[in-house]
Amino acid sequence: MSSPVIPKTQKAIIFESNGGPLEYKDIPVPTPKSNEILVNIKYSGVCHTDLHAWKGDWPLDTKLPLVGGHEGAGIVVAIGDNVKGWKIGDYAGVKWLNGSCMACEYCELGNESNCPNADLSGYTHDGSFQQYATADAVQAARIPAGTNLSEVAPILCAGMTVYKALKSANLRAGEWVAISGACGGLGSLCIQYANAMGYRVLGIDGGDDKAKLFKQLHGEVFIDFTKTKDVISEVNKVTNGGAHGVINVSVSEAAIEASTKYCRANGTVVLVGLPGGAKCKSDVFNQVVKSMTIVGSYVGNRADTREALDFFTRGLVKAPIHVAPLSTLPTIFEKMEKGQIVGRYVVDTSR
Amino acid sequence: MSSPVIPKTQKAIIFESNGGPLEYKDIPVPTPKSNEILVNIKYSGVCHTDLHAWKGDWPLDTKLPLVGGHEGAGIVVAIGDNVKGWKIGDYAGVKWLNGSCMACEYCELGNESNCPNADLSGYTHDGSFQQYATADAVQAARIPAGTNLSEVAPILCAGMTVYKALKSANLRAGEWVAISGACGGLGSLCIQYANAMGYRVLGIDGGDDKAKLFKQLHGEVFIDFTKTKDVISEVNKVTNGGAHGVINVSVSEAAIEASTKYCRANGTVVLVGLPGGAKCKSDVFNQVVKSMTIVGSYVGNRADTREALDFFTRGLVKAPIHVAPLSTLPTIFEKMEKGQIVGRYVVDTSR
Amino acid sequence: MSSPVIPKTQKAIIFESNGGPLEYKDIPVPTPKSNEILVNIKYSGVCHTDLHAWKGDWPLDTKLPLVGGHEGAGIVVAIGDNVKGWKIGDYAGVKWLNGSCMACEYCELGNESNCPNADLSGYTHDGSFQQYATADAVQAARIPAGTNLSEVAPILCAGMTVYKALKSANLRAGEWVAISGACGGLGSLCIQYANAMGYRVLGIDGGDDKAKLFKQLHGEVFIDFTKTKDVISEVNKVTNGGAHGVINVSVSEAAIEASTKYCRANGTVVLVGLPGGAKCKSDVFNQVVKSMTIVGSYVGNRADTREALDFFTRGLVKAPIHVAPLSTLPTIFEKMEKGQIVGRYVVDTSR
Amino acid sequence: MSSPVIPKTQKAIIFESNGGPLEYKDIPVPTPKSNEILVNIKYSGVCHTDLHAWKGDWPLDTKLPLVGGHEGAGIVVAIGDNVKGWKIGDYAGVKWLNGSCMACEYCELGNESNCPNADLSGYTHDGSFQQYATADAVQAARIPAGTNLSEVAPILCAGMTVYKALKSANLRAGEWVAISGACGGLGSLCIQYANAMGYRVLGIDGGDDKAKLFKQLHGEVFIDFTKTKDVISEVNKVTNGGAHGVINVSVSEAAIEASTKYCRANGTVVLVGLPGGAKCKSDVFNQVVKSMTIVGSYVGNRADTREALDFFTRGLVKAPIHVAPLSTLPTIFEKMEKGQIVGRYVVDTSR
Repeated sequence: MSSPVIPKTQKAIIFESNGGPLEYKDIPVPTPKSNEILVNIKYSGVCHTDLHAWKGDWPLDTKLPLVGGHEGAGIVVAIGDNVKGWKIGDYAGVKWLNGSCMACEYCELGNESNCPNADLSGYTHDGSFQQYATADAVQAARIPAGTNLSEVAPILCAGMTVYKALKSANLRAGEWVAISGACGGLGSLCIQYANAMGYRVLGIDGGDDKAKLFKQLHGEVFIDFTKTKDVISEVNKVTNGGAHGVINVSVSEAAIEASTKYCRANGTVVLVGLPGGAKCKSDVFNQVVKSMTIVGSYVGNRADTREALDFFTRGLVKAPIHVAPLSTLPTIFEKMEKGQIVGRYVVDTSR
Repeated sequence: MSSPVIPKTQKAIIFESNGGPLEYKDIPVPTPKSNEILVNIKYSGVCHTDLHAWKGDWPLDTKLPLVGGHEGAGIVVAIGDNVKGWKIGDYAGVKWLNGSCMACEYCELGNESNCPNADLSGYTHDGSFQQYATADAVQAARIPAGTNLSEVAPILCAGMTVYKALKSANLRAGEWVAISGACGGLGSLCIQYANAMGYRVLGIDGGDDKAKLFKQLHGEVFIDFTKTKDVISEVNKVTNGGAHGVINVSVSEAAIEASTKYCRANGTVVLVGLPGGAKCKSDVFNQVVKSMTIVGSYVGNRADTREALDFFTRGLVKAPIHVAPLSTLPTIFEKMEKGQIVGRYVVDTSR
Repeated sequence: MSSPVIPKTQKAIIFESNGGPLEYKDIPVPTPKSNEILVNIKYSGVCHTDLHAWKGDWPLDTKLPLVGGHEGAGIVVAIGDNVKGWKIGDYAGVKWLNGSCMACEYCELGNESNCPNADLSGYTHDGSFQQYATADAVQAARIPAGTNLSEVAPILCAGMTVYKALKSANLRAGEWVAISGACGGLGSLCIQYANAMGYRVLGIDGGDDKAKLFKQLHGEVFIDFTKTKDVISEVNKVTNGGAHGVINVSVSEAAIEASTKYCRANGTVVLVGLPGGAKCKSDVFNQVVKSMTIVGSYVGNRADTREALDFFTRGLVKAPIHVAPLSTLPTIFEKMEKGQIVGRYVVDTSR
Repeated sequence: MSSPVIPKTQKAIIFESNGGPLEYKDIPVPTPKSNEILVNIKYSGVCHTDLHAWKGDWPLDTKLPLVGGHEGAGIVVAIGDNVKGWKIGDYAGVKWLNGSCMACEYCELGNESNCPNADLSGYTHDGSFQQYATADAVQAARIPAGTNLSEVAPILCAGMTVYKALKSANLRAGEWVAISGACGGLGSLCIQYANAMGYRVLGIDGGDDKAKLFKQLHGEVFIDFTKTKDVISEVNKVTNGGAHGVINVSVSEAAIEASTKYCRANGTVVLVGLPGGAKCKSDVFNQVVKSMTIVGSYVGNRADTREALDFFTRGLVKAPIHVAPLSTLPTIFEKMEKGQIVGRYVVDTSR
């Protein structure tokens, strides 16, 4: 493939200060370093983390000015001198972990997201809310040719995160997984991955619409917390002793504590949401006598990414998306803050 | 071996009500059921749990009247009709898990201590504070011929419990294990097992005597919390990023919470003590971003028992004990309540 | 439930010497020992192992005279004194591992089939080719009430064996499993378990009928060795580098050796069939450089049995069976020797 | 540190054709690529693989002309543009796996040695038999400051290889590991690693000198195959049922087959030596009924390297070495071919 023409400037959403104006304007196209690829982003998912990055309300400082976004799907248009294994025209994904040192203990063990020098897209490295983004060639996601780039975008963070959480629950096929917050953006992907992995899915969420969506996604048992007196007892009854694994997509502190009561003896409670300042409170007597595990699951590594994408490619998971112009990102953030979003927004960088 | 003469009555410490008088008196010798062996207990360790059983201050009801004790070491003197693999004269141990159903999901998976029908020595089944105790033949511990029965007694609960906790930390040889409360009865056994397993041992405890004991047991780094300003930073510094595993022998809620801050990313915090009503509070953000595991470890199963005993038999662990007459148990309980015991008391049932 | 009337005698197929006459006649109903249940066998699967037991051509001696059979499904009619957790009227399965010592290292670790004192149904213990069989209460399989007893019979050995083999392959959902001999009795169950566990199934077998059956059972890729020049290259191509796991249901020595060539680097070859005297020959250079594992998988333990049955109960696996009178067993053996059986024969003990 | 002066030429041992003359002469100093470091090699171990590379008798072609060697220990003198985490003056090791793509499935999973594009020192990339060698910065071994560079050299391949093999045996502390060929170069390192990991070590080798060395290295049981009638029975007796793991350092086909007979049920036989053309022949019946694993173990990854070095740094393993001038390498190869080497030769590149 002949080298594509790369413009000098591009459209992006950028902000100068945390919480400051989100400007849709022309900025320079970045140049890839020797270890990087340049990706012409076609679509980018919009994640709650992007809102945190803009507001700057997490303990970790962002780069400023910043272009956010970390679910970018596009096409490789330039390649650094020292890059192996990529060619112009390949489909690539820009994900939360833009790059890591590959040399520390964490990177060596495949726990790259725990690298002390991790470089984060849309946080410490300009992300996917622009038309051209750079990404470390080793960490960039490999997306098969022919993939629908708008639909795949949310897999790069939301999908991979719940897939990794399910792996962290360490279940065998045929065991029960309870998903607390089953029918939101993450939860609805989690149901699909869990089914594809052979688990029995119990969903906890509130409302008839959620119940309906749960059934559409082939979940097995739905517990509506708005209608169930004692959720803990109900889960324990339905699963004949408690869920073997629990995925806490919900970030409610009370829901997390409850999950330690309906997790089976020798089972695993997975923490995956990131409620600022919240504690997971576990009764020590209960946890010891049940020999229960509580594990934190962060974003996946390169292998997790490849595997999560593979389930998507095989048609086993699908995120319901709303495509909107990149220029409307401020409006999407507003809706997100008000909790008005169902499913996942994906921005089209060409508009 | 010809069958030994079994008396009709024996000496025991028994109580009629929780917290009531601890009477040293003659009671009938029990008859083993078809699945049981009858063990002539020579020595029994005295554990904090025995105090809880007497006082009845745990959420689970005890049998009444009750003979306590669950670290009993002795000699097989009678065998039920349906018992396989034991013969008169074998050395046997009566441990916390007297028997389990062997048929439920937990028993099937080797998690017998989680069996809903677990029968507990010195709690739901008359224990080792008597001269003759019954034990399920499958669960009774096999003690090699020639073993010193007073010294092995504490291995049957204390030793096996810390060994199991170390296994639950899921470490590889060469990794750091921090022991919070390193120099008490459990901790000092934990140091020795950890060394035998190839781990690097960091101990946290208070006072010069503890520091001295720690070095005698070949611990590598001791942190005296009475002299160290910031224990968390110190552990993180010494271990170059946090301990790979933490064994919380200390039951202090604050110490447990601190352990989540000096555990390494991807590491494991083990809860093993049983402080009534305490919570393990873990910051969700910290736990997720560190991908840290918190696991409850209860008593071991049959294999854990065999393995823990094998380390003792090979001379790799040794509990410092004080031998006292069974009749003095009430005095030992008094000392225990006042926190005056260093090392482990073992009662001699012949006096 | 009131105790059922148990007759003094019953119909059985029995032989006095290996290879001697298979007599269909009245024999006494056995009395359960204190640890046993007595099961009124309704149906029993017929397995190749039963043929070996009759002929006595394996290195291990059989009991004589012997009632064979180890896939017996029936109803509990009597219970030994020392049995826990069973009641009259429960559905129970008599499987290959009739009982084990529960006290040796292998039993302790859940590897009961490796117990040196394992008692084997239809081999060292009279089996399921009779109307009333005894089984150790701990090892007997628990079959849910209402289960179709003829259809469940083959799950007790064939189903559980392939399920265990799949577990031994240590795969994650989404990985490729190749089944060598995919469309025989064991293979066709293996396809179904593999699908239920989320694996991608590649089948190797010969002939259009087999190809058709493979598709009916929702296998993904079929390789017909009668039509494919180079099976090894074809598997490596289709799976993009080799199968992550291989289940050798086929007992051909050449097929087993080939499987070491189309197994992926870091993958696992599982041996599960028992060809007398055959060797698995693996090129050392190839195995080291690929870091490949070859593992022997024997019958499952109690947990494997429960899990294998659960997949059946949930409707995810189904064995095609032919029901025939117990009295026709000699004819079934004849067909088996001639290789004329497709699917699994199940004998009805009432005829 | 100021940049060191790097000469234009250097001394090396180089050959133009496989089996051709090994010339000690001046060649240009290589320039590191953007991802590489340049290491001033001080010492390099000499491994059997170097002999194979020179002769060209393995199925994989070497680069030509070639500078061999892959146990090089030295000091970083130059750093490519795109290198993270190294600085001039750091101690570095050049090991067999010089570099890998870091992007394929194998690299993603930490199985970098299985990378199809692996670049091999002293085989496809000029190695450590020269004064200045290049190495991929991600794969180069990090050696702590102050390390004795001649003694550490053999750890970079021999040490790490046996350490990885022991990890592949998947043992717990207290289990038996048998080392077949216990007292050669690899075996004597294996004994020390096994001790440091808490395993019980049984060594098999021949002769009184070997027996003596075994005891000096604190092995527990030595079996002299020149004096023992039935090695298989003896191992099974001593270990009470077979070794839990076997490390086949010996490359004898017969010894490998024997190891499948003295490996315990549920145990693991590790293949680690690379005898050209040899087969590992395992009796299928035996392997299935014992549920035994046979696994190939290749060189370790970055984490294995760091861990193997850490045991050395902590003083727990030590290779007996002979230091000789680089110019004498042809003589060392001669001795190696004749099997006259005891311990490990390390060449000094300054002479």
